[in-house]
Amino acid sequence: MRFLHTADWHLGKQLHGFNLQAEQQAAYEQIVQLAVQEKVDAVVIAGDLYDRAVPSEAAVQQLNSMLMDLNLKHHLPLLAISGNHDSAPRLRTGSAWFAATDFYLNTKVSQALTPVVLGDTQFFLLPYFEPFEARHYFEDDSIRTVQQAMEKLVTAMQAQFDLDKKQVLIAHFFAAGSTHVDSETQVTVGGLNAIPVDLLAPFDYVALGHLHGKDALHADRVRYSGSPVKFSISEATQTKGVWIVDTDPFEATFKPLTPLRDVRILKGSFDDLTTPAFYQQQTQDDYLSIQLTDRQVIPNVMAVLREIYPNIINLERVNGPVVTDNQITEIDPSLDPMLLMADFFKQTTDETLTKQQQHWAQNALTAATKED
Amino acid sequence: MRFLHTADWHLGKQLHGFNLQAEQQAAYEQIVQLAVQEKVDAVVIAGDLYDRAVPSEAAVQQLNSMLMDLNLKHHLPLLAISGNHDSAPRLRTGSAWFAATDFYLNTKVSQALTPVVLGDTQFFLLPYFEPFEARHYFEDDSIRTVQQAMEKLVTAMQAQFDLDKKQVLIAHFFAAGSTHVDSETQVTVGGLNAIPVDLLAPFDYVALGHLHGKDALHADRVRYSGSPVKFSISEATQTKGVWIVDTDPFEATFKPLTPLRDVRILKGSFDDLTTPAFYQQQTQDDYLSIQLTDRQVIPNVMAVLREIYPNIINLERVNGPVVTDNQITEIDPSLDPMLLMADFFKQTTDETLTKQQQHWAQNALTAATKED
Repeated sequence: MRFLHTADWHLGKQLHGFNLQAEQQAAYEQIVQLAVQEKVDAVVIAGDLYDRAVPSEAAVQQLNSMLMDLNLKHHLPLLAISGNHDSAPRLRTGSAWFAATDFYLNTKVSQALTPVVLGDTQFFLLPYFEPFEARHYFEDDSIRTVQQAMEKLVTAMQAQFDLDKKQVLIAHFFAAGSTHVDSETQVTVGGLNAIPVDLLAPFDYVALGHLHGKDALHADRVRYSGSPVKFSISEATQTKGVWIVDTDPFEATFKPLTPLRDVRILKGSFDDLTTPAFYQQQTQDDYLSIQLTDRQVIPNVMAVLREIYPNIINLERVNGPVVTDNQITEIDPSLDPMLLMADFFKQTTDETLTKQQQHWAQNALTAATKED
Repeated sequence: MRFLHTADWHLGKQLHGFNLQAEQQAAYEQIVQLAVQEKVDAVVIAGDLYDRAVPSEAAVQQLNSMLMDLNLKHHLPLLAISGNHDSAPRLRTGSAWFAATDFYLNTKVSQALTPVVLGDTQFFLLPYFEPFEARHYFEDDSIRTVQQAMEKLVTAMQAQFDLDKKQVLIAHFFAAGSTHVDSETQVTVGGLNAIPVDLLAPFDYVALGHLHGKDALHADRVRYSGSPVKFSISEATQTKGVWIVDTDPFEATFKPLTPLRDVRILKGSFDDLTTPAFYQQQTQDDYLSIQLTDRQVIPNVMAVLREIYPNIINLERVNGPVVTDNQITEIDPSLDPMLLMADFFKQTTDETLTKQQQHWAQNALTAATKED
């Protein structure tokens, strides 16, 4: 059994107001191409297909098209679960019809205990769940944490193990370190809702979703695929991609994806960033978090930079602003707005407001106050 | 071919704040029972499955369960279209997989021109559409109205007619009267977006959704099923149900459904309505629009009536209120709220506010104003 492991598509997600639909589509196209090239027997999507419980019509259309393309056009078996960002009841629409074409979409804890058998492998598809669902399912009020629930679930899954086959768990949770008490990697982050990787040892492989970086966890047989697209500045340095997993003999190979527009940090002085010799070397339409090294006031800085870099998602002054004696460092909200404006004008232009300018400003202020 | 014709389920709809889920479920249970008893070959649902473009999770679960029950449990072929209340992109989720079990769910104009053939009948499933969709589909900028679009659509459908078979159109629009110029039933309501029934003459039967009463149109071969449940007071006198339609020889039989709680008008004096001998004869938990014949002020009228009739959706004074000389008939918004309250108190209790009461009222008013 060879399968492709991906997760956290987050269709419908926006990045600082920018629609990522084209980026997500471009990543998807590479995923399906990889699935075909690598001749995988199935595609695993480990939760968070959508970014929101109520996705937009556009996101619904995009996911529907992708799933139809994978399963009905390319005839690839699909193994998918709902994540914490998905609405399980909404996502499961149609799923009762999907199994006929080897598309398994699990959204309930109870479904996890009936493995899907494809080739030499039993797949256990465990959707994201809250402790109360496991409490209800097992009729056991002592289950208060995801970790307690997982202990029971893994035991119940093991009872279903066919020892002639390999076992793969598909899940969407926070897995962490190890429970070895003498280890530095003891579970300390996430508390009782983190699943220790040792608990997952019975499986030949655990295909996880939830964390967006493939390096969030270091365990040979328990892996996050990460998201196919960078969804925040904090993911700027991550390499995005998918795992191609062979069960026998076991092998997991990471296949990177090429972003349509990258998300990255661009650091420099305003003069450097606006010099053609510099910016012509840049992929100007990447999603950029700009770190300006200047400290002085630069009039209209964002508008000027956006002329060159249209997709700026963030602007930071890494060295802080210049602080002068007469500068207002903390704005007193009781200050007269006209005084604030006059002060700002003086700072940026080094001129004082003329009578006519004061008049215009006062009129604009009056109009704006009325609109409130 | 014998089929059941229903429409306008409007799952998720509320009636003056009351959740109709139980009523809709009860109607559905009767529909499926009829389908089985009458040994129909298919069930037709002519649009507005949901009440809203973004239905609640509960409504999604309810529709999904019903469709699974009909198609996967009872193995009934389903022929459904989206209505103006449905979001076509959301509703079509999964539909590419449905056809394998004879469940056809059309949400695009283009799909209407490929008939679904079941038994002796070609079904044309035309979802609700706006003129621009037909304009786009036919690449014909002259299409400005639904009527113009329908002329082209009917012609295109006729080109697909297999004369050895019967033809049934399933659609969701406003059909009206006849185009006979000498007729009294000329299209006068709905203007250019009403479809004249004459235009639909090529079909052996037209199964319509949109209007909620089966008697909205009087044409032998063009019928509204109406909604299975009453959705407003204006539907209080309608009989709800479904059509059982035979194509050869043609016959259409209306099968009424029994409401779980009826929607009806209850008229009488306050004394009558609150007399046990009267109300014990009533189905007290029906959804009631109460028409009170009294004219005098009745303190706490709604609270008292709701003790007896828990599901009041409306209260009307059919004879108008008593108007006395000292009564404020139009409230002057500049009036002091304390004066208004004192006046109201006097009218309803015939007493004046005590000093303590005035104090309480003033405190409550001050607190309420602060919250604003």
